[in-house]
Amino acid sequence: MYAVIMAGGKGSRFWPRSRNRLPKHLLDICSEKTVIQETVARMLPLTPPEKILIVTGAAHARELIAQLPAIPEENILIEPVGRNTAPCIGLAALVVRRRAGDEVMAVLPSDHRIGDEAAFRRVLAVAAEAAAQGRHLVTIGIRPTGPETGFGYIERGQSLARRGEEEIFRVKSLREKPDAATARAFIAQGGFFWNSGMFIWRAATILDELASSLPDIHAGLMEIDAALGAPTEAEVIAAAYSRFRSISIDYGVMEKARDVLVIPGDFDWSDVGSWDALWEASEKDGAGIAARSPGNLVNVGARNCLVHSPGKLVALVDVEDLIVVETDDALLVCRRGSSQHVRKAVEALEAEGRNEFL
Amino acid sequence: MYAVIMAGGKGSRFWPRSRNRLPKHLLDICSEKTVIQETVARMLPLTPPEKILIVTGAAHARELIAQLPAIPEENILIEPVGRNTAPCIGLAALVVRRRAGDEVMAVLPSDHRIGDEAAFRRVLAVAAEAAAQGRHLVTIGIRPTGPETGFGYIERGQSLARRGEEEIFRVKSLREKPDAATARAFIAQGGFFWNSGMFIWRAATILDELASSLPDIHAGLMEIDAALGAPTEAEVIAAAYSRFRSISIDYGVMEKARDVLVIPGDFDWSDVGSWDALWEASEKDGAGIAARSPGNLVNVGARNCLVHSPGKLVALVDVEDLIVVETDDALLVCRRGSSQHVRKAVEALEAEGRNEFL
Repeated sequence: MYAVIMAGGKGSRFWPRSRNRLPKHLLDICSEKTVIQETVARMLPLTPPEKILIVTGAAHARELIAQLPAIPEENILIEPVGRNTAPCIGLAALVVRRRAGDEVMAVLPSDHRIGDEAAFRRVLAVAAEAAAQGRHLVTIGIRPTGPETGFGYIERGQSLARRGEEEIFRVKSLREKPDAATARAFIAQGGFFWNSGMFIWRAATILDELASSLPDIHAGLMEIDAALGAPTEAEVIAAAYSRFRSISIDYGVMEKARDVLVIPGDFDWSDVGSWDALWEASEKDGAGIAARSPGNLVNVGARNCLVHSPGKLVALVDVEDLIVVETDDALLVCRRGSSQHVRKAVEALEAEGRNEFL
Repeated sequence: MYAVIMAGGKGSRFWPRSRNRLPKHLLDICSEKTVIQETVARMLPLTPPEKILIVTGAAHARELIAQLPAIPEENILIEPVGRNTAPCIGLAALVVRRRAGDEVMAVLPSDHRIGDEAAFRRVLAVAAEAAAQGRHLVTIGIRPTGPETGFGYIERGQSLARRGEEEIFRVKSLREKPDAATARAFIAQGGFFWNSGMFIWRAATILDELASSLPDIHAGLMEIDAALGAPTEAEVIAAAYSRFRSISIDYGVMEKARDVLVIPGDFDWSDVGSWDALWEASEKDGAGIAARSPGNLVNVGARNCLVHSPGKLVALVDVEDLIVVETDDALLVCRRGSSQHVRKAVEALEAEGRNEFL
């Protein structure tokens, strides 16, 4: 099995740690390793480094290569410009097909956190087996813990098979991010899963689906395919990407496809979409404090805070529900529950032209 | 008039800015100048640098001298060990008497903030005039803004004179820091002032009062007096201080003295006893934010906070009532109203032996 890790994220939601040059997947916010180092490491028991492809933007390639010395440099695929997930996945599928014929590829986001890696790999192995047998588009559904409006949902259909603890279902429908009432209805009804953004299929299968659902993008991909390995490769990729529209694989392919499967997974997953989500996903002490460096924390009566301040002593006195993040040049103190407003601080800095903080 | 500035403070109440080696009066927490630089600067229109004496401990003398290049080094009197205000004032009185005979000396804390300096100097000039005429011990009373329990109180007696806007009263009683009910009764009754810790008298007057009220300390001072300027001076001072008990001028002298006057002052005074007091005393923007470096603050919906973070950008998002203080090695985030608990953080660091933060 090939693994294709999508590392095109930008994101200011982890400001001041994340910057234009340092998006979330390149940060060590969840553990001592960076998020993409964790993502790669959890795949290594399933597939060797030679079969791990990473798609990223030019601005971040150098840092990414430095963080992942085990990945061969020819496995880092560089997009000249981000065009959402459909072109990204198409490009990777070309490379997989070129190198390994019609092998199965698992498409994985670079910036999610998975608590139970063994369970994750069990689900992925079942998904790869299912994808190898036919022309299925296999998704992994996360059992919802609440009516979240930040995720797409997958509605399961009939059960097809069981493999140990895992069960494979047909997909009845894919739903885009719902409003709150719709999300509550999904949860009440049951049979809905969060769309994890992980996809498993044979390279030829997804290229055929792209051909039928997004023929314009498929045409550009075919131009790239003809140039792969040639001196004109970078030039052809740049030309194709300049014409690609920005479109997601969910909207462009999955919602129209007929042979979609879902395997529900329970492996302590989080997309870690914000400082608030990171607090939720983090281990906390008895006072609800999640500290990146607990040895450097002095807590006098504080509760339910997230503290990221590498190397500096932090004393919290009688505060509650705060996000405290410190870097060499900036300090964020945010009410827990308000981390979606961090982007307003970033926007203010943009408006003032203070690019050194962006 | 001589000015005697008492700079013996230690204090962990401004941690993490204040440290053992850097007490409050040596910090630039109220303005671009340090607190003692402000204290000296506000006296210069009344008295030349040659007549400003500063009493401090050996541990802080070097930094103090560096901060006050205009003060002659022989005007820095070094106590080998702190023994509260009575020995400190006695030592300074010896030096004043030796240099200027029976001149008036104003005893001033080093670490208070005064908003209206012109008004302060008017009051002080009236006090000096009163002190020069007789054997009065003149105090300056601060008109209370509420029933504070952190100050001693001065109860005024009959009015003796008026000098322009100032009025001179006999003191009926001096009260130590009251409990809350007593403080409320003082305010309800009227005629009570906060004891500012400022005293104005002739050098001979206070030495005579020490002789009658604290004869043991006076005896030690006489030994020092005999050695002033001699090669044995430091040795004799060390020996005397090793025997001195620790006692305040208020408790040891003022409460027993009969000829005490008070001049009420209204000059926007604060003893700046804590981060909370500093927020109260500071200029604030429309959102109630007092920032040491307003140009480095990004405020997204935050209110009523104190921010001291020299040089680093600080973004506050939806937080209220916080004290945020950052130094090179430590960060404090404290609920406003809880700054008296900052010492618990300091105690925790002491208990852990983390002396680099003390």
